Amino acid sequence: MNNTISDIKITKCQSSKINEVDFENLVFGNIFTDHMLLCDYKDGVWQQPEIVPYAPFLMDPSSKVFHYGQAIFEGMKAYKDAHDDIWLFRPDQNFDRFNKSATRLAMPEVPEEVFIGGLKQLIQLEKDWVKHGNGSALYIRPFMIATGHGVIAAPSTEYRFMIILSPAKSYYSGEVKVIIAEHFSRAANGGIGAAKAAGNYSGQFYPTKLANEEGFQQIIWTDDATHTKLEEAGTMNVFFRINDVLYTAPTSERILDGVTRKSVIDLAKREGIQVEVRSVLVDELVQAAKDGSLKEIFGAGTAAVINPIAGFSYKGEYFELPKMENSFAQEIKTKLTGIQTKELEDTFGWTVKV
Amino acid sequence: MNNTISDIKITKCQSSKINEVDFENLVFGNIFTDHMLLCDYKDGVWQQPEIVPYAPFLMDPSSKVFHYGQAIFEGMKAYKDAHDDIWLFRPDQNFDRFNKSATRLAMPEVPEEVFIGGLKQLIQLEKDWVKHGNGSALYIRPFMIATGHGVIAAPSTEYRFMIILSPAKSYYSGEVKVIIAEHFSRAANGGIGAAKAAGNYSGQFYPTKLANEEGFQQIIWTDDATHTKLEEAGTMNVFFRINDVLYTAPTSERILDGVTRKSVIDLAKREGIQVEVRSVLVDELVQAAKDGSLKEIFGAGTAAVINPIAGFSYKGEYFELPKMENSFAQEIKTKLTGIQTKELEDTFGWTVKV
Ligand SMILES: Cc1ncc(COP(=O)(O)O)c(C=O)c1O
Ligand SMILES: Cc1ncc(COP(=O)(O)O)c(C=O)c1O
Repeated sequence: MNNTISDIKITKCQSSKINEVDFENLVFGNIFTDHMLLCDYKDGVWQQPEIVPYAPFLMDPSSKVFHYGQAIFEGMKAYKDAHDDIWLFRPDQNFDRFNKSATRLAMPEVPEEVFIGGLKQLIQLEKDWVKHGNGSALYIRPFMIATGHGVIAAPSTEYRFMIILSPAKSYYSGEVKVIIAEHFSRAANGGIGAAKAAGNYSGQFYPTKLANEEGFQQIIWTDDATHTKLEEAGTMNVFFRINDVLYTAPTSERILDGVTRKSVIDLAKREGIQVEVRSVLVDELVQAAKDGSLKEIFGAGTAAVINPIAGFSYKGEYFELPKMENSFAQEIKTKLTGIQTKELEDTFGWTVKV
Repeated sequence: MNNTISDIKITKCQSSKINEVDFENLVFGNIFTDHMLLCDYKDGVWQQPEIVPYAPFLMDPSSKVFHYGQAIFEGMKAYKDAHDDIWLFRPDQNFDRFNKSATRLAMPEVPEEVFIGGLKQLIQLEKDWVKHGNGSALYIRPFMIATGHGVIAAPSTEYRFMIILSPAKSYYSGEVKVIIAEHFSRAANGGIGAAKAAGNYSGQFYPTKLANEEGFQQIIWTDDATHTKLEEAGTMNVFFRINDVLYTAPTSERILDGVTRKSVIDLAKREGIQVEVRSVLVDELVQAAKDGSLKEIFGAGTAAVINPIAGFSYKGEYFELPKMENSFAQEIKTKLTGIQTKELEDTFGWTVKV
């Protein structure tokens, strides 16, 4: 790419739709801001990035993304502080992970000036869409799809990178009960589970629907070979508190290397909580639930930040978790969102000003 | 759906592009006929199917297919016989498999009158695109994508089903050398490997690229848990001939239930060839290659029908296969394509007139 970030071509929309939006009653991921960023890859190079009004675009029916699933994405958030400054949370991590996903799916890496630089320019333009306080954030969705034509199973030679933005309120998903996967799986050894690839999500909807029908909101996935090791949830990494130790599975080819997960680990350690990164066995969890040493389970991911889990089901038996006074989930959530929104000091250097 | 097949709305193109096509030099899956079928699903019902000129269509940037990979497809072929009649090969099998894929990806099933009925009407309209003889065929690509909007990981409520057609010549992919997967995998136990889902292909491109760089065209996948069992190739099921017995892996959650595969099994049996459907171990294959009992390996799939494999590599060692006088691959290919093109009697009742 010969362009630099100053080369982004900006076409503004005629009139903003911001006044039509009810910011107090947002459904997650449903409404998008006025503009989007796009950048096409062809002839082996990234073309000039553009910021244009948010709008549908033309796709050929034989586009590779429709047939062979070359599609990856990221999920990030921007927060506005009391001085109206806007902050990103560890965007370098999302950028790195995006390009790792790209490599695993035989897609081209996106240049930093397009991903990070483009994102900053886009957010500048949409700064009124980022609201203050109370869990408000701008959800950021960078993604890349294969736009090349042809129904032969081979990597595309053309791609489109895009960033779209969606205003979000504090994500409260209600009381979450989970079921532990006994049969279905989300990822294979040597597969694409560690990539944030569209294909990883498509296989989860059916088992999750079955779980929903039984009254459970989510699934905690286990390793596909033995279904004995606890891995992660659909869009969250998972933490288990047994007595006063916090456990989470190591990342692997099957598990997404979550930005929230690694931040939780660092933060918990700083707060003096003992963290052990190792595989937790389903049997161990059941045993701990039975003998009362299992205190908490929570999910960690960008959308919900920290999502406490009320109980889990395994082989038809339901285990309710205790209501904790000094919940690690609550403590970590407060600290983490405090850093993200600049209400608490960021001793880690995680926040980046737009 | 309240419509019947007679309800398909047809909008013809102004002028055909058929005269611009060089039918002697077709690249597989690259050129499409003048029309396509589309049918949208919304509010819980399939809308009126339409046949319209082949053209790009508008997609919202937040369309679920781009983010969560809900996309499935089929691959079939139509042949023209000496009387100018056009024949489909076991279309019921593709229809069934399509709807099984749909269920596994939490997508709605497509009605038979849309899939089969719509296909027949579309082919009628495009009958000049189906050419006689010499491996000529019309490749048929039915597919379905999630068109609903929103970046929350949940199944779409809107879908588009489409059929596009591409004229094809006999598929000759040159001498195929394969590598046996030692690390990478295409499917998990309890995953979506048995579905013809876009997501299954996206993970294969990178390992296949690495194989290509080492001089191998394709990968034979092994089970992801142990990498000891031979499963299938990227777009073909695989057969192994050891002495005079033909082996192929049983279908499973990890393996696509190929129409060519099941036809090969029936045909081989009819020809008096002993067929055993059981897992073949990598060690067995290596042993058989070493002691000379391994006679042939071939892939079976709609695009190439039968694809003989020249040799395989495992753990850095290359095993060249013998050139066979009475090759099963050749015999089965001749018989199978003979049935498909109506040059040989179809004692199985596999062919269906359009
Ligand atoms: C499968 C999966 N695991 C974990 C996570 C959490 O990752 P992060 O904390 O980077 O959002 C996500 C994404 O949100 C995910 O999709
Ligand atoms: C993964 C995979 N295996 C096997 C096959 C062969 O199936 P069929 O014979 O139905 O074309 C295909 C599709 O062509 C495939 O994509």
